[in-house]
Amino acid sequence: MGKVWRLGVAGLGTVGAGLLQLIAERPDFAPAGGRVEVVAVSARSRSKPRPADVSAFQWFDDPVALASSADIDVFVELIGGAEGPAKAAVEAALKLGKPVVTANKALIAQHGVELARLAEAAGAPLLFEAAVMGGTPAVKMLREAMVGDEVVAVAGILNGTCNYILTEMERTGRPFAEVLADAQRLGYAEADPTTDIGGFDAGHKITILAALAFGKAPCFAAAEIEGVENVDLLDIRLAHDLGYRIKLVAAAVREADGVSVRVYPALAPLDHPLAQTSGALNALFIEGRKIGRIFIQGPGAGAGPTAAAVAADIADVMTGARRPVFQRPAEALEPFSRIDPSRHVSRAYLRLLVRDQPGVIAAVSEALAEVGVSIDSFQQKPVQDAGGVPIVLTTHEAPESVLAKAVEHIAGLDVVVAPPRMLRIAPV
Amino acid sequence: MGKVWRLGVAGLGTVGAGLLQLIAERPDFAPAGGRVEVVAVSARSRSKPRPADVSAFQWFDDPVALASSADIDVFVELIGGAEGPAKAAVEAALKLGKPVVTANKALIAQHGVELARLAEAAGAPLLFEAAVMGGTPAVKMLREAMVGDEVVAVAGILNGTCNYILTEMERTGRPFAEVLADAQRLGYAEADPTTDIGGFDAGHKITILAALAFGKAPCFAAAEIEGVENVDLLDIRLAHDLGYRIKLVAAAVREADGVSVRVYPALAPLDHPLAQTSGALNALFIEGRKIGRIFIQGPGAGAGPTAAAVAADIADVMTGARRPVFQRPAEALEPFSRIDPSRHVSRAYLRLLVRDQPGVIAAVSEALAEVGVSIDSFQQKPVQDAGGVPIVLTTHEAPESVLAKAVEHIAGLDVVVAPPRMLRIAPV
Repeated sequence: MGKVWRLGVAGLGTVGAGLLQLIAERPDFAPAGGRVEVVAVSARSRSKPRPADVSAFQWFDDPVALASSADIDVFVELIGGAEGPAKAAVEAALKLGKPVVTANKALIAQHGVELARLAEAAGAPLLFEAAVMGGTPAVKMLREAMVGDEVVAVAGILNGTCNYILTEMERTGRPFAEVLADAQRLGYAEADPTTDIGGFDAGHKITILAALAFGKAPCFAAAEIEGVENVDLLDIRLAHDLGYRIKLVAAAVREADGVSVRVYPALAPLDHPLAQTSGALNALFIEGRKIGRIFIQGPGAGAGPTAAAVAADIADVMTGARRPVFQRPAEALEPFSRIDPSRHVSRAYLRLLVRDQPGVIAAVSEALAEVGVSIDSFQQKPVQDAGGVPIVLTTHEAPESVLAKAVEHIAGLDVVVAPPRMLRIAPV
Repeated sequence: MGKVWRLGVAGLGTVGAGLLQLIAERPDFAPAGGRVEVVAVSARSRSKPRPADVSAFQWFDDPVALASSADIDVFVELIGGAEGPAKAAVEAALKLGKPVVTANKALIAQHGVELARLAEAAGAPLLFEAAVMGGTPAVKMLREAMVGDEVVAVAGILNGTCNYILTEMERTGRPFAEVLADAQRLGYAEADPTTDIGGFDAGHKITILAALAFGKAPCFAAAEIEGVENVDLLDIRLAHDLGYRIKLVAAAVREADGVSVRVYPALAPLDHPLAQTSGALNALFIEGRKIGRIFIQGPGAGAGPTAAAVAADIADVMTGARRPVFQRPAEALEPFSRIDPSRHVSRAYLRLLVRDQPGVIAAVSEALAEVGVSIDSFQQKPVQDAGGVPIVLTTHEAPESVLAKAVEHIAGLDVVVAPPRMLRIAPV
């Protein structure tokens, strides 16, 4: 019971402040016994006003020095970023055999294997529950609960900012740029929102989950990523009329000859759990050969949930469990081999703006027939201010390369007045 | 890597057979390294035909002897039942310091504290992921992932048999007894279905989850349990017309002065995730003070999922993690203090069968007004073969004791031709 676990916390943003508060309130939160005590902290500016009083802790300007300090038993990295001080500090702690708990998805997605090697060589845990889905324990589920099964797919909504923006666009009928500006004002989106809206944050997260699910080395470079920047309000409306909602889907699939890891906006049926995951919620499907389908939904960010996830990792360190960082030891992780993207198949939503004149439907359907894409539904509907008459169609499953060719054909038709917009229909 | 973990498996039903198959296929499934080998088994009949060949294993007629055998490192208990050989065998293994993995919800719900004491005294893990929600890791989530938070409520659908029966009643329009008989024929329900349809199985499970969630000693005797035996097809139909689906809900709530653990049929709105949990699926909401709400849904039973959950527990044993059996050491578990049931409040669905004559609505609404129950909606609707004219009403929130009094009043009215049926509207 008596042992005190001395923490060094680098990074004192919202999550760091949430963690300090949690530990101040319940230093004995860990079931395995023992007490957690923050002894040292590090952040960019010592004088910046913070929600938590940090004057009682030893201060380090340099997180690497903090990570290396003999005064700490566990290093908590909440700085962020795949390179620079976060990486250097985590490496320093692991090399000294100090357990590391981090919320840094970019770091794990991009340098997970080398860090896992360091951690396993030193016998030090490297835990990152808070890196994916905030307070919702997706990492623990895949790393620990699914090991009796073989996971064949994971898919979900992993970026709260994008989900908030898409939800608000539908709810308020306002365009992307306006809703994004609001989200930035409210603190739901960063001043530079590229990481979120470009799909890169979701890409980091699905890369990590894929590694845990499939026993492969995480390989962010192999992820195919599209963001939500090009999702038009018009398509949100038209998709809704068809019984769908547009979501930024992150999906990883294992097949016999490789893995695909992708992030893209897609249509999910309105009664589907992903379509019902609104605002800043996150959600994930895990599909196992024996277990079947598990769905998990919960808060994907926020100081409270994320700090609680960090605390759960600290409690895990205190149990003394020895397990590999990913699903198997770093040396035994299979190399990530990407499925040839030309093999992807999908159902698609295709929206055109056309001139209101005879023969349009014939021209479009011929263009599709030519490349062999079969139409599932076809609608022409008047929408004001759309800059043309929208035609919306959904296709049966087809190779994505063929769908792309169809879009190219259609874009070249005289009657089409704007670049066609194609979105996948989510396979889940 | 090299260590071999020798398993003794007692109980060779569907889950036991599933486990033998899983281990035969992937003896090296555990990420922490090491190989799992079944060395000895025990079951009631040695000669019974089984899906798995067990001739290669040492045979024990007595599971206690198996549990005590020096040849095994981990004892897996899949016999079932709160007393008798299952309990004796688990105790024998723990006393010898052998890790125990079990799927036995009755045993943990009824004897969890004494077994936790034994396990913790001997420093042996006692794990039971497969006891609740089959392959869906509810136990791990509450025991490990939520420790950074304080859980205030858990609620869900924990019995697949009841959920299957309710789903089939709605889908086919056939009455309870017929659907149950089918379920028994198909193997979805036991020959003696009392444990499932009486709500006791869900009661065991929610008792375990409540203990994990709240840090209380599990106390099955304190659970208030109603089953699905009295759910009428008529109510399933009428509830559906109102926008609800009837589900067997298991719920545990912590308040300042105690805990309530209950199982009862209740109405969930059709668009609610619990209403959308159909067939043999299970689902659970976990509500934490910091994290907010997490929802998890997945298969609640079946050889594959349950065996995978047992395997995940075995893998956990192999990590050497030391944590208490429940959320804190057995000695530190708070005694279970039940909230005074008279304090429960609920919204209610009330269905009457009345004579088709003037003054009925006035009589019913007066009876409710007298005890102070406020009506939310009121419908009188013709239904064939109901044995009277159904009146369906929903109430605003009221103390359940007052609702019971209202039902009593109404039952005494001349115009009411059958005992009124009251169901709670799920609070989640």
